[in-house]
Amino acid sequence: MTSYEKLEKRFGRLLALREAAGVLHWDASTMIPEGDTSAAARSEQLAALGTVCHEILVSDEVSDFLDEAEELSDLGSWQAANLREMRHIWVHATAVTADLVEALTKASMACKTKWQIARTESDYDGIKPLLAEVLKLVKEVAAAKSNALGCALYEALMDEHTPGLRQDLVDPIFSDIEAFLPDFLAAVLDKQAAAPQPILPQGPFPEVQQRVLGEQLMTELGFDFSQGRLDISLHPFSGGTPDDLRITTRYDETDFTTGLMGILHETGHALYEKNLPKEWRRQPVGEARGMDVHESQSLLIEMQACRSKEFLTFAAPLMKAAFERDGPEWEVDNLYRIYTKVAPGLIRVDADEVTYPAHVILRYQIERALINEEMTLDDLPAAWNEAMHRLLGLIPPDHATGCMQDIHWFDGAWGYFPSYSLGAMTGAQIFATARNADPKILPAISEGDFTPLYDWLGEHIYGLGSLYETPELIERATGKPLDTEIFKHHLQTRYLT
Amino acid sequence: MTSYEKLEKRFGRLLALREAAGVLHWDASTMIPEGDTSAAARSEQLAALGTVCHEILVSDEVSDFLDEAEELSDLGSWQAANLREMRHIWVHATAVTADLVEALTKASMACKTKWQIARTESDYDGIKPLLAEVLKLVKEVAAAKSNALGCALYEALMDEHTPGLRQDLVDPIFSDIEAFLPDFLAAVLDKQAAAPQPILPQGPFPEVQQRVLGEQLMTELGFDFSQGRLDISLHPFSGGTPDDLRITTRYDETDFTTGLMGILHETGHALYEKNLPKEWRRQPVGEARGMDVHESQSLLIEMQACRSKEFLTFAAPLMKAAFERDGPEWEVDNLYRIYTKVAPGLIRVDADEVTYPAHVILRYQIERALINEEMTLDDLPAAWNEAMHRLLGLIPPDHATGCMQDIHWFDGAWGYFPSYSLGAMTGAQIFATARNADPKILPAISEGDFTPLYDWLGEHIYGLGSLYETPELIERATGKPLDTEIFKHHLQTRYLT
Repeated sequence: MTSYEKLEKRFGRLLALREAAGVLHWDASTMIPEGDTSAAARSEQLAALGTVCHEILVSDEVSDFLDEAEELSDLGSWQAANLREMRHIWVHATAVTADLVEALTKASMACKTKWQIARTESDYDGIKPLLAEVLKLVKEVAAAKSNALGCALYEALMDEHTPGLRQDLVDPIFSDIEAFLPDFLAAVLDKQAAAPQPILPQGPFPEVQQRVLGEQLMTELGFDFSQGRLDISLHPFSGGTPDDLRITTRYDETDFTTGLMGILHETGHALYEKNLPKEWRRQPVGEARGMDVHESQSLLIEMQACRSKEFLTFAAPLMKAAFERDGPEWEVDNLYRIYTKVAPGLIRVDADEVTYPAHVILRYQIERALINEEMTLDDLPAAWNEAMHRLLGLIPPDHATGCMQDIHWFDGAWGYFPSYSLGAMTGAQIFATARNADPKILPAISEGDFTPLYDWLGEHIYGLGSLYETPELIERATGKPLDTEIFKHHLQTRYLT
Repeated sequence: MTSYEKLEKRFGRLLALREAAGVLHWDASTMIPEGDTSAAARSEQLAALGTVCHEILVSDEVSDFLDEAEELSDLGSWQAANLREMRHIWVHATAVTADLVEALTKASMACKTKWQIARTESDYDGIKPLLAEVLKLVKEVAAAKSNALGCALYEALMDEHTPGLRQDLVDPIFSDIEAFLPDFLAAVLDKQAAAPQPILPQGPFPEVQQRVLGEQLMTELGFDFSQGRLDISLHPFSGGTPDDLRITTRYDETDFTTGLMGILHETGHALYEKNLPKEWRRQPVGEARGMDVHESQSLLIEMQACRSKEFLTFAAPLMKAAFERDGPEWEVDNLYRIYTKVAPGLIRVDADEVTYPAHVILRYQIERALINEEMTLDDLPAAWNEAMHRLLGLIPPDHATGCMQDIHWFDGAWGYFPSYSLGAMTGAQIFATARNADPKILPAISEGDFTPLYDWLGEHIYGLGSLYETPELIERATGKPLDTEIFKHHLQTRYLT
């Protein structure tokens, strides 16, 4: 075997072990008994898996194989890309010591657990010491990785989620959106105030009916239940593995519309995983291309395809049938008003498409300032409230609806937030390109037929895995780099025309 | 750290990884989507975990640490026992090559999959080539391990499931039972034919009601649902981990009695796991003491405690209430007749307490002869039918109810069967000792109070883990080695007086 082939074998095992961890994470959010001891045992299992994965990567052998393989001149193009991705995984693993990883895992676990209670009590002072410990360790990770990657501290954290993402890409995009939003938002709010108001269908909507409808629409979208499941968790997510997709939701019996769109969002994530290149399964080049592209695929399905009037034309009769209801609130125009309603709010996960970037920009500015020590945790609540007022004109009444609302920082996931809005913009750009390339895409969606869309996505996104780095993937698929004009055009078309 | 302490760390990780595999196995029997690709991906994950576990054990370091630790004279008694168990795990792992383990895993997977269809068609010729491949590899394993353990081929296989078990213990026990059974069985059948016949309550018994009743009785028995679950699988089993117990059952809506007792059987397994010594968690000394002791604990709960008239006195009103029924078939005496009905049959898993050993003895004789090449797979069906006729007077009409009924051989699990009957005898002996030691045990059970029983079991079985080897555990707990007289006395008392 060549050095490269030995690496394929090692990384194949590594990714199979990460798949195992993925199933254990899914179980921990859906099936695990509520007792503390069950959760503690799961942590031990995941820690052992994490240690084993780390040891595979930091072995001298893997280091030598990488060096040798990079000297080989006869690698095919996908193998060369695979090697590039292996090196990237290796850099992240070897930049930090196993002790630091373990310390951060434990600190995050302790902080996240405490946060779940502290948030309900808006007790920022109570959580601050644990958050400070997490932040201290995250900064150590950032320092080590920025050194290894040759980038800024905050960039090293973004790089964990979206490889290659740098501030010189993010900053102009977020500045542009930040400048665009105030006037645009005011115009949308004026327009919607003057238009007919959406009528929310009145519940109760029994959980079982919501689930049946969700499964029906998932199936229409191409989710294969012989290779996946839909379950319930506190925080909806898409998990499992490409051959065994496990998405989750939660049901509100007074309002089915939010949960249903959440299911379609997670289905978008799942479809990307499902259609990743099978021939590169369990190789780094066959993995999803970072979290911004992942979000682009969930948001393309949710925001672009499923909030369209075309999709709602298809879905409205199914909704009526599922709940055995009828009336003006089930008209397509009304459902479209519901699903495109814009209303500035305090909570990111409840935000509409227009105000969502403001939530992300706020977090981007704050978490970068914290990492760069331009701000301390003592300043965080005030900085949050100031930014929320500046960006959306709102002031949170408490920390639970302010700086304590998201799990990310308390769970050690710093540098993730930009992926959400970059994903939204990337999704808009990809969808616009696909629609231009194949005019049948939207008409087909109005008949519940996603095949033309998937054919295009399969060729330009799904089937490429991590063959190209993100900017090249976007440029090859859409003909240009990520361009805020396309996202803004989408917003203007949907909300002001 | 001393060599011993280093071993504790390695084995702690090993057992955490095995716990992870346990959860993945549970998921594969309960939650996994039905598609082939999901199952194939799970196999890859488990194979990667298996490889990693194997590599931990066969490393030069672990070998050196074991040698060094065994030279240490200042180990405490539980540490010494832990070291003994580590060495035992190590011998099994290092006796075989990773390639042989992988080949057997793959051959078993292929054979088991084909068997599931072939069994429904009684197609022995169709499965024979795959079974031959499994048997060939099992014999290679037996040869390698018999060499490493210094024991007979078949003993090396029994030793995987019940460490230390040898033929000179099994043979006289099984000979004694084989000689005892014919006259005893005839007497029981005569007695039961002359007595009132049990009246089986007529269904349907909706699955949800059966589940609620099962969960209620599990809770009465001390199963803690904050640390465990009850789910459905094709073949009931007890899985998960001591802190996260996952038992399964299947429901027959025409007859609740079998499924309910199955739940109590698996609860017995789970209670043993739950009460293993916490201070030795994820150390070999803290693990369950082999499969015969494990079966002794499930059968103690099922056969000794829950088929007693005392328990049925407690459970009868709960059964009536669960199904909202009443009538003579719900009387304790009738339920007792149902749960102690003896009827020779072809199927092991449906067998009663009296005829069960005949099924095990048959398999013990045949699988040992196959391993020792005193018989070939061509001879298997005829040998099976001859033995079934000799032991129980029955001849299977087809292979599905004959030599193809159990998954064990097709799945590569050879040498397991003796554990079932040794477990039944051990359970009877332990229960008899406990009742003598604390006369409150049975009266308490008639009130649904298992505390006196668990107090005794906790001290003499549960809390000892693998501190003693099996014969010593039994002798310390019951004052004597495993003694068929006690089992026979139990049968005579229950069935002939």
